[in-house]
Amino acid sequence: MTSAVPWPALDGIAYGGDYNPEQWSRETWHEDVALMREAGVTLVSVGIFSWALLETSKGVFDWEWLDEVLDLLHANGVAVDLGTPTASPPAWFFAAHPDARVLTRDGVALGFGSRGMASHSSPDYRAASVRIATELARRYAHHPAVVLWHVHNEYGTPVGEDYSAHAVREWRAWLREHYGSLDELNAAWGTAFWGQHYGEWEHIGAPATAASVVNPAQRLDYARFTDVQLRACFIAERDAIRAHAAQPITTNFMANQHNGCDLWAWAKEVDIVSDDHYLWAADEDAEIGLAIAADLSRSVGGGMPWILMEHSTSAVNWQPRNIAKVPGEMARNSFSHFGRGADGILFFQWRAGRSGAEKFHSAMLPHAGADSRVFREVVDLGAKLGRLAEVRGSRVHADVAILWDFESFWAQGLEWRPSDDLDNHERIRAFYERLWRDNITVDFALPGHDLSGYRLVIAPAQYLLSRSDAANLNSYVERGGTLVVSFFSAVVDENDAVHEGGFLAPLAESLGVRVEEHLPMREGAVADLRFDDALLTADVWQEDLVIAGAETRATYLGGPAAGKPAITRHQHGDGVGWYVSTRPDARSLAVLMSQIYRDAGISPADSPEGLEVVRRHGDGVEYVVAINHSETAVDMPTAGFDLLTQQEITDTATLAAGHVAVIRSSSADEGGGH
Amino acid sequence: MTSAVPWPALDGIAYGGDYNPEQWSRETWHEDVALMREAGVTLVSVGIFSWALLETSKGVFDWEWLDEVLDLLHANGVAVDLGTPTASPPAWFFAAHPDARVLTRDGVALGFGSRGMASHSSPDYRAASVRIATELARRYAHHPAVVLWHVHNEYGTPVGEDYSAHAVREWRAWLREHYGSLDELNAAWGTAFWGQHYGEWEHIGAPATAASVVNPAQRLDYARFTDVQLRACFIAERDAIRAHAAQPITTNFMANQHNGCDLWAWAKEVDIVSDDHYLWAADEDAEIGLAIAADLSRSVGGGMPWILMEHSTSAVNWQPRNIAKVPGEMARNSFSHFGRGADGILFFQWRAGRSGAEKFHSAMLPHAGADSRVFREVVDLGAKLGRLAEVRGSRVHADVAILWDFESFWAQGLEWRPSDDLDNHERIRAFYERLWRDNITVDFALPGHDLSGYRLVIAPAQYLLSRSDAANLNSYVERGGTLVVSFFSAVVDENDAVHEGGFLAPLAESLGVRVEEHLPMREGAVADLRFDDALLTADVWQEDLVIAGAETRATYLGGPAAGKPAITRHQHGDGVGWYVSTRPDARSLAVLMSQIYRDAGISPADSPEGLEVVRRHGDGVEYVVAINHSETAVDMPTAGFDLLTQQEITDTATLAAGHVAVIRSSSADEGGGH
Amino acid sequence: MTSAVPWPALDGIAYGGDYNPEQWSRETWHEDVALMREAGVTLVSVGIFSWALLETSKGVFDWEWLDEVLDLLHANGVAVDLGTPTASPPAWFFAAHPDARVLTRDGVALGFGSRGMASHSSPDYRAASVRIATELARRYAHHPAVVLWHVHNEYGTPVGEDYSAHAVREWRAWLREHYGSLDELNAAWGTAFWGQHYGEWEHIGAPATAASVVNPAQRLDYARFTDVQLRACFIAERDAIRAHAAQPITTNFMANQHNGCDLWAWAKEVDIVSDDHYLWAADEDAEIGLAIAADLSRSVGGGMPWILMEHSTSAVNWQPRNIAKVPGEMARNSFSHFGRGADGILFFQWRAGRSGAEKFHSAMLPHAGADSRVFREVVDLGAKLGRLAEVRGSRVHADVAILWDFESFWAQGLEWRPSDDLDNHERIRAFYERLWRDNITVDFALPGHDLSGYRLVIAPAQYLLSRSDAANLNSYVERGGTLVVSFFSAVVDENDAVHEGGFLAPLAESLGVRVEEHLPMREGAVADLRFDDALLTADVWQEDLVIAGAETRATYLGGPAAGKPAITRHQHGDGVGWYVSTRPDARSLAVLMSQIYRDAGISPADSPEGLEVVRRHGDGVEYVVAINHSETAVDMPTAGFDLLTQQEITDTATLAAGHVAVIRSSSADEGGGH
Repeated sequence: MTSAVPWPALDGIAYGGDYNPEQWSRETWHEDVALMREAGVTLVSVGIFSWALLETSKGVFDWEWLDEVLDLLHANGVAVDLGTPTASPPAWFFAAHPDARVLTRDGVALGFGSRGMASHSSPDYRAASVRIATELARRYAHHPAVVLWHVHNEYGTPVGEDYSAHAVREWRAWLREHYGSLDELNAAWGTAFWGQHYGEWEHIGAPATAASVVNPAQRLDYARFTDVQLRACFIAERDAIRAHAAQPITTNFMANQHNGCDLWAWAKEVDIVSDDHYLWAADEDAEIGLAIAADLSRSVGGGMPWILMEHSTSAVNWQPRNIAKVPGEMARNSFSHFGRGADGILFFQWRAGRSGAEKFHSAMLPHAGADSRVFREVVDLGAKLGRLAEVRGSRVHADVAILWDFESFWAQGLEWRPSDDLDNHERIRAFYERLWRDNITVDFALPGHDLSGYRLVIAPAQYLLSRSDAANLNSYVERGGTLVVSFFSAVVDENDAVHEGGFLAPLAESLGVRVEEHLPMREGAVADLRFDDALLTADVWQEDLVIAGAETRATYLGGPAAGKPAITRHQHGDGVGWYVSTRPDARSLAVLMSQIYRDAGISPADSPEGLEVVRRHGDGVEYVVAINHSETAVDMPTAGFDLLTQQEITDTATLAAGHVAVIRSSSADEGGGH
Repeated sequence: MTSAVPWPALDGIAYGGDYNPEQWSRETWHEDVALMREAGVTLVSVGIFSWALLETSKGVFDWEWLDEVLDLLHANGVAVDLGTPTASPPAWFFAAHPDARVLTRDGVALGFGSRGMASHSSPDYRAASVRIATELARRYAHHPAVVLWHVHNEYGTPVGEDYSAHAVREWRAWLREHYGSLDELNAAWGTAFWGQHYGEWEHIGAPATAASVVNPAQRLDYARFTDVQLRACFIAERDAIRAHAAQPITTNFMANQHNGCDLWAWAKEVDIVSDDHYLWAADEDAEIGLAIAADLSRSVGGGMPWILMEHSTSAVNWQPRNIAKVPGEMARNSFSHFGRGADGILFFQWRAGRSGAEKFHSAMLPHAGADSRVFREVVDLGAKLGRLAEVRGSRVHADVAILWDFESFWAQGLEWRPSDDLDNHERIRAFYERLWRDNITVDFALPGHDLSGYRLVIAPAQYLLSRSDAANLNSYVERGGTLVVSFFSAVVDENDAVHEGGFLAPLAESLGVRVEEHLPMREGAVADLRFDDALLTADVWQEDLVIAGAETRATYLGGPAAGKPAITRHQHGDGVGWYVSTRPDARSLAVLMSQIYRDAGISPADSPEGLEVVRRHGDGVEYVVAINHSETAVDMPTAGFDLLTQQEITDTATLAAGHVAVIRSSSADEGGGH
Repeated sequence: MTSAVPWPALDGIAYGGDYNPEQWSRETWHEDVALMREAGVTLVSVGIFSWALLETSKGVFDWEWLDEVLDLLHANGVAVDLGTPTASPPAWFFAAHPDARVLTRDGVALGFGSRGMASHSSPDYRAASVRIATELARRYAHHPAVVLWHVHNEYGTPVGEDYSAHAVREWRAWLREHYGSLDELNAAWGTAFWGQHYGEWEHIGAPATAASVVNPAQRLDYARFTDVQLRACFIAERDAIRAHAAQPITTNFMANQHNGCDLWAWAKEVDIVSDDHYLWAADEDAEIGLAIAADLSRSVGGGMPWILMEHSTSAVNWQPRNIAKVPGEMARNSFSHFGRGADGILFFQWRAGRSGAEKFHSAMLPHAGADSRVFREVVDLGAKLGRLAEVRGSRVHADVAILWDFESFWAQGLEWRPSDDLDNHERIRAFYERLWRDNITVDFALPGHDLSGYRLVIAPAQYLLSRSDAANLNSYVERGGTLVVSFFSAVVDENDAVHEGGFLAPLAESLGVRVEEHLPMREGAVADLRFDDALLTADVWQEDLVIAGAETRATYLGGPAAGKPAITRHQHGDGVGWYVSTRPDARSLAVLMSQIYRDAGISPADSPEGLEVVRRHGDGVEYVVAINHSETAVDMPTAGFDLLTQQEITDTATLAAGHVAVIRSSSADEGGGH
């Protein structure tokens, strides 16, 4: 099963973090490797921000310190994920190429002294990036420490869109190739509106700050173009490395935390998906956001094992209030990623840096040193992961898919939408959270994917839906699937143009309903719905629905659509299409979903409150990863062998408050994704 | 009476909207005209954003499509309000003239791809505007469809002030002409303050972003200059059209929604006032804001009939939450405009556009098509307006004037006023709302106007008041008028300089009181006032008043002026001057106004809550326009003929919830404004 | 005692304000001086914004009007504090030197028409400043009216930091001198983080807007550089004046209202400290903020008498709500400054200006004229101050010092600190307020100062603390002092690098505790602490404390550190070190401080609520300045002679609500600072 998966030449679950030896003395390096051994560290990412120290001026390289670091790590049994440092070009680069600086929409040229790449379209930046990547690959392709290549860092952050002359030139070239003719472009962008017709390619600019709202189709295309350009930067470096080196190549994504890259497309270009994830501290249930990120990382990679490239041992440094993790939370976070398919658990960063913008970011080795709660937990986690080598390569199954479409997010995120209360991530989280609490594992998918393996597909935020993707969804229902569509979906096509026939028209076939008018609610307004015998509560949005075949399952009792259908259900072919034209609160969504589960033939797990359970499937074995987020011990009926405690469990696993178990049992399953 | 009024060659009340055929196929055009006939549409505005499609490159014109559209409309009995497309110059224009782009106060050059005119001071823009206007007039002056010219669109939005080199050059020229000498300018601007003395005209810049607050007199003049420049753009186009065409010429204002144009001056330049109005959806009583806009449109035009050039059938697209209109609301809105003097009821726009920034704006023909609530209401409204032809040209009378002075708003809106809670539009709305609820019709006026025809004049927000305008108000009182002045009035002269003698000094004669000190209140603070036997409540502001002849009518019971006069009344000559030095809440204002009505000899209409009544006066007839905004039926004692139902009413008209009546009765009145 | 103090050649306590005769006619000048005499004015500041009227074009001077003004003032017994007008260069200067304009971090060139100096690094500005200062000194050095020189105005506001090419050039020069080598700079800034290593001085830019957070050490150095450059501007003018004139030279600070200048360094460069202070009107206890400013002004000047150069008679004009002072408040404010060492009480400004950005700022002579409450109070205050001549030169003692370190504020104010709730001024105010309410007089000090004269030293916000300053504090405790350190202190060194050994490590010796981890609390969260028998309440912040010798005095009952130490006390040598790892509310701080007073051997004054008492010490006499802020009369047991009422007090002074007394008694004290 795992034979086809490219993976670093490493045993077991990888464990470690970013390592920045260039910030420290040689003496400290030796202390570092000793403590790494103590913590069971097997993989560190090196060189991510080292350009200025490796290429000290154009074409002049200093490899000595890196040679020494790699040798030292290798001698101590720590493998290396070697970074290309192109997320942060040196001062000399910008001094030589001031035109390579990124320009904001307002025309501000971003300065040096922070982090952030140059213009994705600067030929000088492209050439310099390929040069340093090539030289690194040439020198270290055969170094025994190097098991993985880490290109760049978090593409798209902290800067993606660029409005410089380089970007505009490439933008016009991209448009020319994408549209072929100005007639096509004018039609796609609807330039007849507000008098924006273009008669020359050279007249098209970037969608910079203007007197009012800029053409949304133009802005949507600019988001696409930016994504393509960033990916081209990655591909150029990847190919430069591949020309000399055989190890797998990755770049670290920011699933669910940065929207600017279409990870479905990016995942096709990397050998291994890797992801950075940071808790949003203000979220009291931040482990749910974590699970979304992990499931998304697995999903974009087609279900293949992936690497958690960065997370934090405790607080981060860039949120309004950087809440420290409570004891055990770091381990629970790690095991949730692991349960959802991560075969590597890494942190930013090994040793807390004394200087710079992120000095208050936690690390494996905190400012307080090794005699600290955090480092003790790091050592403990390393030991535990060391017992899980056999799980590597096993896979996660899901019966439910939630649609996650970056293009739709980009489109919906533009200006002048019907209500400021529209928030596609909020709806995804709401549906996901219900499934999480029911311990139903979720994949994410695009509307154009083959969805036939899923019992239930949910579209919480599919504002943009092409006709062909809509046909795919209709066909999914017709063939027996259960589809749930939330409000403000299927509104526009791929050019942000309202569908002919009106909102939702492309899904009329599977949903049996049409939307005559959007009815956003006033700020703070709430309305009840009658749903069988239950009274549901919803807010933010209603719609004027016209039934075209569906049955009305819930009716508005108040608000602008009072007396009209709120939730509908439509039998289409062998399947069922639900439409939810408002925003039910969590309690109401639970009531609704329990009905939908029946249509889909799904049963929620009957597990105690706060117990998260995910399963990984190997050849003939199943690993139950159980995480007790609650503050009391819970019992879980199961039998098997707890890999963490190395204890046999006969009928019930008891998890103490905050504890985790990884239980192996035999299974008829053959592993692999759905 | 109406003979002198220039009016499009159209029968009856005009009905229709913006029509943008360039966004649609020829097939759709034919569907459009069929549906227009069904809806009773008589007038559409065409070409407002068509520059790029009419002049495809400099001096190259393509008239074919427009010829066809106009012929088609004419053939179907729909007249045309032909736009000049100068609110949105083509891409080729900006490509050829990058210096014509508008610069913000921060120096950002606004880009193409949205809407918005070029710099009002760019000679290239001026020449290009005149060229396209001239060519349109030459070609269509004698087209039988064209009954009205629509220059540009909503001057001043989305961009008015410009800080480009063109603007600065014209600004210096304007100052030179306005002031004649630098000594005059230095004195007017008070440049001795903060060391801003100018020794050369060329040293004067636009009031761009600076380290601190820019000279307020300079900023006030820049607002005046901007208004003058925008108007010069209009006049240039208007004169270009007039050279070839005889139809009336208008441009659509944004009364009460955009402050940047001095509509009193603009109204003198147009043949017919036309106005765009959009409900502010978050306002639960948005019909009052609508009535203000309508009364202001009529007032700036000297009481002449006007055209509602744009409003919406349902939601707009640019507010935080774009609330759809409830059934019947569109008609009630339309009849309120009609009752206040509008002889044309038009919408933005005929057919909802699929693309662009305003695709979520409602239209006469929504995305859902003709089989929709909105289109059915559009058809019904068209039918009703069709029965009102005889009302055209009749006029509205008012006994009360509220002062509305754009220059004062500009001045008060500048930085560093005594309290962030000062809000001139809030106070106008408060006084207007009281009169609206009492069904007392209001005109708006400038303080320098002949006010002798009004029983009552209210100055809710006359921060800036010149000595000569103050003399006019004093004289109005002396001759028997009742004047009500609200706090923070008559503070500065036309140069934003505090009046010699102190705040309010120019009105001492009519008010009998002087203001020793402003006493803004803390955030959220409230104080009671004793007013005869009543306890009033007020907030935001108090003043240290010194009585100089007036009687104290209310006394502060709390707050910084506790124990001192709050509201005064002064007999001056044959009239009375009231001064209100604080912000009474709605209930308190009602108590106060009931006293003031007595002085003015005015009686509020005794009509049921929620019934709006306005009257139009024709030759020997009166039309009562009654709008039931409430959710229950109301009875209105009256006799006459309801033009909408075509029923005779003998003694009582019963209006169902949400319904409207237009009742003709005979009258001794001769029509015409006061 | 006062012999060494440079002081203007003036008798008694100076009284007056800014005087801007250039805004008025000659006729008004004569009215002004008559009213000044009536008010007892002895000193006015002239010429602060007069550059454009004195040097009408480059090198062309017009002295006539100023000659006349100075002669007139002198003839009327009013002395002059003569300003150099360099805070507001003329329009001709900027026209000739557009490169001298200040650039913002975003690259916006700040325009003319407001106020604000040119780039502190422009050689043209420096030369022009020295030229006008020189010419003023040449002409007026021997004018009998001139007793003091007033260089510039409020350095650092409204603009300090500059990102122009001039600034960048000087910045590199400053760095070169400061660091000597790039190796030193790279180490100090920690440029290994995020790949910011510099290989050439010319590659270093100003810390302008970048894609993400700019290197904090770089930004901290830019704050230092800006301070140094501004001070260099001052020194250049000062030296130009000194070359010709013998009178003392000052520049007006903004203690506690502008953070950009390190007043400890500035105070060394002026002959006399002078300060501008404005109440923050939204603060209901604004007199406490005033007292901080006054104590800070005295402290930076080493306890020498100082001048309150500007305050306001009533409202200011630049706050969100500009609350007028209530009757008597102006006098109470003035006497609080006087009690804390001010030997001059001046206002902005003499006569309210009719024009410009500050027309709504109150003045000694308001818009309402001399027949006004404000002017009557001005006259009364002048008379009272006239009775206090003998107090001049006496000094204030304090047993308590609070650390006030601008560098630490600059560093803590940078981005990405652990919590948005961290606010160093809030903590200083909290501790200061407790001491103010206990009528314990406070000095401010730097951590490196000789603190041995204080019984108690409080460090409420010492985020940045160098090793050597920490050693000074440790030594202070060892030798018997009582030190109180509040949370988030001693976190970083002078390069904003976290201390080796972890947070607080440099103070481990005196505090006996170490901080393992910061534990910021969620927004709005609150936790209780057990402190002996008392329950304290605190919020915002907790820490994971590890005891290393200290005793735990309070324990967290809730929050992330529940069960762990919250407040500790450590005996070190002959003294005691307290550490407070959270933010107690006011009540809790009172409980805590009462314990700390015991360690320090301090007793709070037992005075009635609302009675502020400060003492000035002369040779053998003590002056008790007592200010009753309450709304009822209070009794104060004392004996002596009330200089204001000229009454002998035998045992009890009774102060009516809002009243002030200045009571002379004999004293064994010899005067002088601590």
